[in-house]
Amino acid sequence: MHAFRSVALDDEKGELVLLDQTLLPNEISYIRLSKVEDIWEAIRNLRVRGAPAIGIAAAYGVYLAVRNSANITESGALISIDSAVAIFKKAKQYLASARPTAVNLFWALDRMERRLALECDALASPAKCHSVARLPASGREEIDDLLAALRQEADAIRDEDARMCHAIGEHGLSLLERGWGILTHCNAGALATAEFGTALAPIYLGQERGYAFKVFADETRPLLQGARLTAWELMQAGVDTTLICDNMAASVMKRGLVQAVLVGCDRVAANGDTANKIGTLGVAILAKRYSISFYVLGPSSSIDLTCPTGAQIEIEERHGEEITSKWYTHPMAPAGISTFNPAFDVTDAELITAIITEKGIARPPFASSLRELMK
Amino acid sequence: MHAFRSVALDDEKGELVLLDQTLLPNEISYIRLSKVEDIWEAIRNLRVRGAPAIGIAAAYGVYLAVRNSANITESGALISIDSAVAIFKKAKQYLASARPTAVNLFWALDRMERRLALECDALASPAKCHSVARLPASGREEIDDLLAALRQEADAIRDEDARMCHAIGEHGLSLLERGWGILTHCNAGALATAEFGTALAPIYLGQERGYAFKVFADETRPLLQGARLTAWELMQAGVDTTLICDNMAASVMKRGLVQAVLVGCDRVAANGDTANKIGTLGVAILAKRYSISFYVLGPSSSIDLTCPTGAQIEIEERHGEEITSKWYTHPMAPAGISTFNPAFDVTDAELITAIITEKGIARPPFASSLRELMK
Repeated sequence: MHAFRSVALDDEKGELVLLDQTLLPNEISYIRLSKVEDIWEAIRNLRVRGAPAIGIAAAYGVYLAVRNSANITESGALISIDSAVAIFKKAKQYLASARPTAVNLFWALDRMERRLALECDALASPAKCHSVARLPASGREEIDDLLAALRQEADAIRDEDARMCHAIGEHGLSLLERGWGILTHCNAGALATAEFGTALAPIYLGQERGYAFKVFADETRPLLQGARLTAWELMQAGVDTTLICDNMAASVMKRGLVQAVLVGCDRVAANGDTANKIGTLGVAILAKRYSISFYVLGPSSSIDLTCPTGAQIEIEERHGEEITSKWYTHPMAPAGISTFNPAFDVTDAELITAIITEKGIARPPFASSLRELMK
Repeated sequence: MHAFRSVALDDEKGELVLLDQTLLPNEISYIRLSKVEDIWEAIRNLRVRGAPAIGIAAAYGVYLAVRNSANITESGALISIDSAVAIFKKAKQYLASARPTAVNLFWALDRMERRLALECDALASPAKCHSVARLPASGREEIDDLLAALRQEADAIRDEDARMCHAIGEHGLSLLERGWGILTHCNAGALATAEFGTALAPIYLGQERGYAFKVFADETRPLLQGARLTAWELMQAGVDTTLICDNMAASVMKRGLVQAVLVGCDRVAANGDTANKIGTLGVAILAKRYSISFYVLGPSSSIDLTCPTGAQIEIEERHGEEITSKWYTHPMAPAGISTFNPAFDVTDAELITAIITEKGIARPPFASSLRELMK
């Protein structure tokens, strides 16, 4: 489908291959990283972004930390299991600090560590990886087994994400019809995941199957993910895409050019209230006005049944410089102006037609349908 | 109230003084123009913008064309009335070409020409200015009278605009309460008029009277008039102003921070449907959702009773470069992306709480109230 992959492993060379998203859409540049420091930098500076993609990059990152240390001594003395575990732990802790609020980053790293522990148990039972000192030094074969296990786990994280996106795509596509106009906001696409994305997954599946969707992408101020990323990746896949400013969505809907809205989600409360990129709430209100279906798409891990409603979701406020001067040749607002720059908003459940996850489709009333879905 | 004036005449020096709006908000620069060519350039390149301000600049422009030609020969032979009329007509035709779609530009120039004709009639009845050849050559006194008449007419255009803005402000303010949060879109302020503006007039009046409004200014993509101009001029007047991206308006409203929306208008149809800057429709739909009053403010000349509904209003579509690359250090969207860039949208009458002009306030049903207002 896509000519690009946001995150990939070149195991032969011992390199993580990232499409540098900070250079899009002007430059399509793949960076090859073998050092943990460079992978940290790439996560930190958003060269790779999107919760699933970050998780995958970090999982390969800790794998490569061990693999490349082992390789260094391949022709001579192999590193010990002790050393491998120490290298892993150091790399894990370091990569976790790249984006301290990225829950999926920690999740992926913890999962890799559990696999490491499991493997150590198998190699040197009853010693635990957690007590490195008790592990015996070991030979080439043990290190190879350990590396194979770590690589397998990282591949699994990637493959599960890809399968999940496909499943979201299938469920989503079942709600759409050929030739429809579809509006999307921000970027919940292939760039943010292993492939296919979440909100964009039905569009890509539809593209493969000749649905001929016409997609309108909100540019998504202030960070312009729609213009820079969504428009780019849809174009790459040959999807009929039109870029608009956020404030043009109402005009597009009024003209009858949109039959469904597809958006991603950062967090869905138990009642269906959904936190997503700033501007999503406005789009949902417009969709309601024009009787357009409004679909939220995301992994079931985004559904937080412990959070009763959207009122409990805290909204991050970011620096006003993103509004006043970022991207510009010179500031576009007077010096000293006050700004309000919430990064997210909460769309009320009543505005949402359905919430689509890899497990299936939840419809109102969401309090019961989401609980059912998550069983 | 304001420390600035968008358009002013320095009659002593024979100069039009414009606040160069292309340099805002980074530079407050007044330009002094004595040549018609320079005034043409300023109108053409939006150094002065907003229908009323353009009209005032053009009116002073044709006055200065005659005045400065007369001055040149002050110490020697004065120009003839013939020459004065010829200079006027040439300047008028030239200035009218600066912005071929600016109706108010032609209106102001035509009004100046009618005054010229009237004056010529008085000076040399029954000869008509339209037949220049029949006018007698004349002395210093006649030229002085002619110049005084032209200056008076240009002043009148400016003063009438100022009075109109004040009247709109008074009517508008009668609908607002102390301490309210007010959201506005684009720029319908003092920069666009002789002073006070239209949509912003109630805010300035309220500011003078201690209403302590808290104003949210939409940045207004793609041309950012809200960020560059509205935020700037409200700050100049000491108004409590917060700049937001267009897609944040829903969040601001949901948080209960806005009690009224004030917007300008380009054209109001007989049924109340209102064409205004792109994004206005979306704001109106959001305001309806949150039961916030949505007020349209403008001169009664914006009300076009010959236009039955908004469906008959043609919407200008502008170049996509305004979305993809204008203002930026480098393009923010992939090369070759399709765009949709309507400059205006039409807000349905049913979304509008009231339409406020210098003649008074029209409320639904607008079909009858607007007709009544325009009697």
